[in-house]
Amino acid sequence: MIEDKNTPRTALSELGEFGLIQHLTKKFKISQESTVYGIGDDAAVLDFADKKCVLTTDLLVEGVHFDLAYMPLKHLGYKAVMVNLSDVYAMNATASQITVSIAVSNRFPLEALEELYAGIHSAAKLYNVDVIGGDTTSSTTGLLISITALGHAKQEEIVYRNGAKENDLLVVSGDLGAAYLGLQILEREKQVFAVNPNEQPDLTPYTYLIERQLKPEARKDIKALLKALDVHPTSMIDISDGLSSEVLHLCTQSNVGANVYEDKLPLDPTVISTCEEFQLNSTTVALNGGEDYELLLTISQEDYPKIKANPNLTVIGHITDQKSGVGLVTRANEKIELQAQGWNPIKE
Amino acid sequence: MIEDKNTPRTALSELGEFGLIQHLTKKFKISQESTVYGIGDDAAVLDFADKKCVLTTDLLVEGVHFDLAYMPLKHLGYKAVMVNLSDVYAMNATASQITVSIAVSNRFPLEALEELYAGIHSAAKLYNVDVIGGDTTSSTTGLLISITALGHAKQEEIVYRNGAKENDLLVVSGDLGAAYLGLQILEREKQVFAVNPNEQPDLTPYTYLIERQLKPEARKDIKALLKALDVHPTSMIDISDGLSSEVLHLCTQSNVGANVYEDKLPLDPTVISTCEEFQLNSTTVALNGGEDYELLLTISQEDYPKIKANPNLTVIGHITDQKSGVGLVTRANEKIELQAQGWNPIKE
Repeated sequence: MIEDKNTPRTALSELGEFGLIQHLTKKFKISQESTVYGIGDDAAVLDFADKKCVLTTDLLVEGVHFDLAYMPLKHLGYKAVMVNLSDVYAMNATASQITVSIAVSNRFPLEALEELYAGIHSAAKLYNVDVIGGDTTSSTTGLLISITALGHAKQEEIVYRNGAKENDLLVVSGDLGAAYLGLQILEREKQVFAVNPNEQPDLTPYTYLIERQLKPEARKDIKALLKALDVHPTSMIDISDGLSSEVLHLCTQSNVGANVYEDKLPLDPTVISTCEEFQLNSTTVALNGGEDYELLLTISQEDYPKIKANPNLTVIGHITDQKSGVGLVTRANEKIELQAQGWNPIKE
Repeated sequence: MIEDKNTPRTALSELGEFGLIQHLTKKFKISQESTVYGIGDDAAVLDFADKKCVLTTDLLVEGVHFDLAYMPLKHLGYKAVMVNLSDVYAMNATASQITVSIAVSNRFPLEALEELYAGIHSAAKLYNVDVIGGDTTSSTTGLLISITALGHAKQEEIVYRNGAKENDLLVVSGDLGAAYLGLQILEREKQVFAVNPNEQPDLTPYTYLIERQLKPEARKDIKALLKALDVHPTSMIDISDGLSSEVLHLCTQSNVGANVYEDKLPLDPTVISTCEEFQLNSTTVALNGGEDYELLLTISQEDYPKIKANPNLTVIGHITDQKSGVGLVTRANEKIELQAQGWNPIKE
């Protein structure tokens, strides 16, 4: 996490815009059948044949979405891709292409951008997506990354947010709250470092939490898993702003209510122990932590036997009628209204 | 151009992210057959049926690409869309969708973003494209706009940069250099204003130049025009960084050379008179000015009779073999090597 002052520093102005783009993208090879033409013309050309195309875009701003004090650039590149692919997977689609645009101030040398692109390259390779374009420009301050992801699916495969029906089961992939706690750990170490730069903290007990924050993995596997289980979700959304916020989105768009059961929330043991250490309520962390990049879906009750033994999927509640509202049923069996306390990037 | 201090100022934080997006995008209606689902889910869903999809993206940064001192926000929104559509048209494709992401500091009230989106809306309506998504977040300083445009075309319609052949004619749409001069006028007025804020300049003689800078129009018409004339270009590129830079791109990618004739460059009379006033060489302005958003294309010699009478298209030179290089043939019939002196956004 400590910047090595001896790394080479090549000024971006030495390469110029086109030289820079060529340098950073030369490793990106086209591998998708749907990519007809990638980087190098006025626009990329894609062929989705008889499939529908899905498209999503996200903007990540230094000082708002990430802090380079503890976010290595390579991880940032990787995570920026994940944030977008997660949205494609939430449509039950297969991700196939991304574009990457960055605005960067001159305090970043070429080597810093190489790190960022190494992370992007690694993510693109592992998730089997082509980098087909982008834009590279300077900013007056800081770093900004804008990624657009494309994917495809057959019409009947696509899952929207608005299809949840009364009595459907509410299901999440993976576990919740770890990414938020990872951020708390990193924030704490940043403050310790500011006071005593020579102290080398032992972060081993928090490895899982820090990985969930710095190197999240989008749930590419869920589409294939659901297909194998012969389950077609009635609705789906990715969990980026926190479970509460996403349950509310899904219910609003589907015109339904929901009960989420506190004792069903999937928590990693490290989440429970670290919540105790930080004196945080683990339910609050799971509901509002955000950045989990898991998928929240609803399935018909009759599909329950198909998923109940699967370690990747947890039933956390069920859909009710709209009038019943969206509530958390606590361990004490009290129902309290769910509030979106997810992260709001439009702040004072 | 003078900010009215009495306009209402609603803080962005009053609406929150989702409220803001809903407020800004409520006017955007879906009209394209290829848009299956627009704003409101994890991703948009598109159906290009048997057509190829083309996709391009651009990032515009305050202080780098635009100066709000003389660029009204409504015009900025309009121009940001044009910059992207121009790339779609340069593929000989039909633009159909855009996504709009913005990062904005809290010095902008809601009313400022409404102005920006009014320009985007106006452009989207006039050019018949759907706004299908985006992202809205805060920035630590300034305004940044990232737009991605999609379009479609039949495979055989698409025109790349790499198809120019020896003896092809080099053709441009419209005229060159006006947008750059518009910027010079606006820069001059900004300086005059700084010295004497009460002076009201008469900019009437420069209307065309200022319009070309503040409200450029992408050449949506060229695809239909070429079709009507039964001309299929062998290569095409849009002129964003200046003619020199684009001729060089086109020649590099097509492995050819080119001669551009100084006396053939299409110049508006206002460009000629304003160059005299500013003591600028009009050829230099036409070659390196940039931001014209015209199209540069090559056509087979046999298609010359089809275009020669058309006021929208001017033959400015021809393609040579690669060894002959890329040159400007001056009025004195001397050939000088063309250099890309276009604008470089990666600067110190």
